[in-house]
Amino acid sequence: MADPRFYLVSGPYSLKTLAEIGGASLNTNSQSEIEIQDVAPLETAGPGELSFLDNTKYLQTFERSAAGACVVRPQYANRAPEKMGLLLTENPYKAYALIAQAFYPVAAFEGQISSGSQIAPSAVLGASCDVSSGAVIGDRVEIAEHCRIGPNVVIGDGVSIGEGTTIHSGSSLSHCIIGRRVTIHPGVRIGQDGFGFAIDPEGYVKVPQLGRVIIHDDVEIGANSTIDRGSASDTVIGAGCWIDNLVQIAHNVTLGEGCVIVAQAGISGSSKLGRQVMMGGQAAIAGHLTIGAGAQIAGKCGVMQDVPAGATVGGIPAQPIRDWHRQTVLLRQLIRAKGRSADG
Amino acid sequence: MADPRFYLVSGPYSLKTLAEIGGASLNTNSQSEIEIQDVAPLETAGPGELSFLDNTKYLQTFERSAAGACVVRPQYANRAPEKMGLLLTENPYKAYALIAQAFYPVAAFEGQISSGSQIAPSAVLGASCDVSSGAVIGDRVEIAEHCRIGPNVVIGDGVSIGEGTTIHSGSSLSHCIIGRRVTIHPGVRIGQDGFGFAIDPEGYVKVPQLGRVIIHDDVEIGANSTIDRGSASDTVIGAGCWIDNLVQIAHNVTLGEGCVIVAQAGISGSSKLGRQVMMGGQAAIAGHLTIGAGAQIAGKCGVMQDVPAGATVGGIPAQPIRDWHRQTVLLRQLIRAKGRSADG
Amino acid sequence: MADPRFYLVSGPYSLKTLAEIGGASLNTNSQSEIEIQDVAPLETAGPGELSFLDNTKYLQTFERSAAGACVVRPQYANRAPEKMGLLLTENPYKAYALIAQAFYPVAAFEGQISSGSQIAPSAVLGASCDVSSGAVIGDRVEIAEHCRIGPNVVIGDGVSIGEGTTIHSGSSLSHCIIGRRVTIHPGVRIGQDGFGFAIDPEGYVKVPQLGRVIIHDDVEIGANSTIDRGSASDTVIGAGCWIDNLVQIAHNVTLGEGCVIVAQAGISGSSKLGRQVMMGGQAAIAGHLTIGAGAQIAGKCGVMQDVPAGATVGGIPAQPIRDWHRQTVLLRQLIRAKGRSADG
Repeated sequence: MADPRFYLVSGPYSLKTLAEIGGASLNTNSQSEIEIQDVAPLETAGPGELSFLDNTKYLQTFERSAAGACVVRPQYANRAPEKMGLLLTENPYKAYALIAQAFYPVAAFEGQISSGSQIAPSAVLGASCDVSSGAVIGDRVEIAEHCRIGPNVVIGDGVSIGEGTTIHSGSSLSHCIIGRRVTIHPGVRIGQDGFGFAIDPEGYVKVPQLGRVIIHDDVEIGANSTIDRGSASDTVIGAGCWIDNLVQIAHNVTLGEGCVIVAQAGISGSSKLGRQVMMGGQAAIAGHLTIGAGAQIAGKCGVMQDVPAGATVGGIPAQPIRDWHRQTVLLRQLIRAKGRSADG
Repeated sequence: MADPRFYLVSGPYSLKTLAEIGGASLNTNSQSEIEIQDVAPLETAGPGELSFLDNTKYLQTFERSAAGACVVRPQYANRAPEKMGLLLTENPYKAYALIAQAFYPVAAFEGQISSGSQIAPSAVLGASCDVSSGAVIGDRVEIAEHCRIGPNVVIGDGVSIGEGTTIHSGSSLSHCIIGRRVTIHPGVRIGQDGFGFAIDPEGYVKVPQLGRVIIHDDVEIGANSTIDRGSASDTVIGAGCWIDNLVQIAHNVTLGEGCVIVAQAGISGSSKLGRQVMMGGQAAIAGHLTIGAGAQIAGKCGVMQDVPAGATVGGIPAQPIRDWHRQTVLLRQLIRAKGRSADG
Repeated sequence: MADPRFYLVSGPYSLKTLAEIGGASLNTNSQSEIEIQDVAPLETAGPGELSFLDNTKYLQTFERSAAGACVVRPQYANRAPEKMGLLLTENPYKAYALIAQAFYPVAAFEGQISSGSQIAPSAVLGASCDVSSGAVIGDRVEIAEHCRIGPNVVIGDGVSIGEGTTIHSGSSLSHCIIGRRVTIHPGVRIGQDGFGFAIDPEGYVKVPQLGRVIIHDDVEIGANSTIDRGSASDTVIGAGCWIDNLVQIAHNVTLGEGCVIVAQAGISGSSKLGRQVMMGGQAAIAGHLTIGAGAQIAGKCGVMQDVPAGATVGGIPAQPIRDWHRQTVLLRQLIRAKGRSADG
């Protein structure tokens, strides 16, 4: 069970209710009226708790689990312990997510402005917004209803924030337009100058950065990530993008809808990603490139050329993932062969 | 045009005036008295706006552009649309930078100390400095004229900051001497302990970090970058260095003048870079190395040995860039050959 | 000598006293009553100062050093300048660390709560704690004696912090239990949501993150690093771990005691590291892996499979370090051979 120092659990719910919430079907053997108190991982869940099996790496843990109920793909139902209630679905992780949201709903809004915050007189905030201590909100800022501005957040002049958005502690935003239901984690930096200067023998000359950052609805941005504003046009993050921690997004980059960028990845200036591009951790994309919709870029990959839609690439420099795997195998064979001939 | 929520445009200027500002010459066909209202990218610029062509990747965009004027190298003048005014120079990006600075000058200083800041009585600030809400300035800090200290910035005891320097929101500085006209973007951490400990079977023993960070004039440091102070001698950033976002600079590192360090690169302890070394994104330099003046280190490169002045290196481990490219080509040939023989 | 703007030196100490402090033995030729005023690097140390020789790369500097005394391994005693006092030990860096701690002890506590901080009425703080301006401390937070909470630090509801812990400026903590004598450098983010969402054609579904971050005693965490809380179980950092700057630790990761994680490394969700694992800079570990005790992972390495205890791995993907070095050598030979045959 989640630590009550930090979390307040709702419920209990019957297994039947949870099946509806999760969009799953109740296994025929399962008692629909059994009461579930909480969610928990397979390893530690007890009789009153619900868990899920998604990654088959944990199949044996599932077989031994004492969880009262579990969300699972139908094909693994016969591997379940005898008394376990089962919710069947082809997307158990999504069903679990919806059920966990029901047990741990987001706390209600208080519409409270801390006396320790500083808000410019020309800023306009929805009456239901929470603003925490140490937050600094600049001139002409507009914040729609149901937003939360965390402690020590800084919002620069003219910034606009859509309904239901949360900005966590210590983040700084400037020169940006933020959509609805966006979550910005602690320490994120949005809208600062991009890395723009002209090279000259007498010293670098700063190029004024005159664009903005546009963040569309339902975006999540991880802790300490950085998104520079456009140099002339805008830096754009499409709706529904998920960006992890410590990610760098340079000026004029465009992300299509639903891109997923894993931690410590970096995208150089003016590159354009289509819809639902996936970038693994510590991957990088050079500047001025086009990455087609649905492309997948492996962790640590270094992309130096355009990537076609739907392609999967890996390695440094990036190449089709199959070629990269072949190179890995080939190199192992070559050094083994060489080792043998040296020994022989 | 830049969004007036965030930017205030100056001007207009005649094309002739802009030629002088940019150090460019007016093309003979161009009307010198044409009025330019603003700068804009090639794609979106209209008749009253000036753009630039630097990266030849955008040559076709230039040919189709509706910009009223453009800064361009002389060799591309004949590719321009008929009515476009042309400013000719071998360094169009620099000319554009100077012109954009004229249209968007840095706002004048207010010399205002927010009542929401906390400044130690022993700190000495120039009368023209701006200090924003939430800034915390320690004992004996010295800040010269025309500095801006952003919201929630923390400046530790004894720090000294030169004239015309700007520290953006949420940054922390300690144990450092900062030069003139330095720009520190949001969330930068300067002067904290380096990663110094002695390994011992009974547990690691912390090595007191007793040096400083010295940042010379005209340096720019990107958002959320970290620069640790020296362990005994100093960590030194030479004049005119440009450091991008999320860069790590460890204790005792020395950067010569005019180095360029792209985002997410890292330099390990005690390494010394000469003048104008360039490091690509996500590149790394191991500890206690010497990188000669003018060396270029490709993105994602891992430098494990000294690099001679003027060399260009790539790969992990670093090697001459030509060798690295050859290896890439060779590996592709080998797997292709192997693929054919497996098919045959 | 350390800059008095930032450091207050204690002492002087006799060489004999320093030998005791450092657990080293005095070389027979050395005068035990010689007075040492300070520590300093080999290059700049003068007659009243003590230095150390650990990395043999600096052996020549040692031979030329004007330091009054030096900590050194016995085998190098005969390389010392004639009048240099010598403290002999097999672990000179540890001895130096202990001696430097004596010259630069941590400043005494003031037990002062800044009027510019905001502390929830239900929070409980030890009487000897320092809380700086701009710190925001939430409901039911517990902070033991002798802790320092830096300027603009944010501590979320319910967080618990053990005795003698220091949190530097601008860090944010939530959903975490922090041990004793932990040092958290500026801008660290602990306890925010991990990167958890279920993929679904209609849009990603957020998975509530219900775990905590548990940080055991004597841990050090570098500037701007990020540690996400567990999704259901906890993210755990074992006692005595040292984590450098800009490191990413994802949800549910477990680090055994005494792990060392160098700057910009990243560990993906649910991976488990045993005791004293070492990760080089910019290395990465994929998700759901097990890294055995004492394993060493080279800088920039990409670990995609489990690593056995005691193994040393390098490369992308990770492989035994010897194989990785062989590949490097082999590739150089192949392109050289190819170059020759192309020339021939």
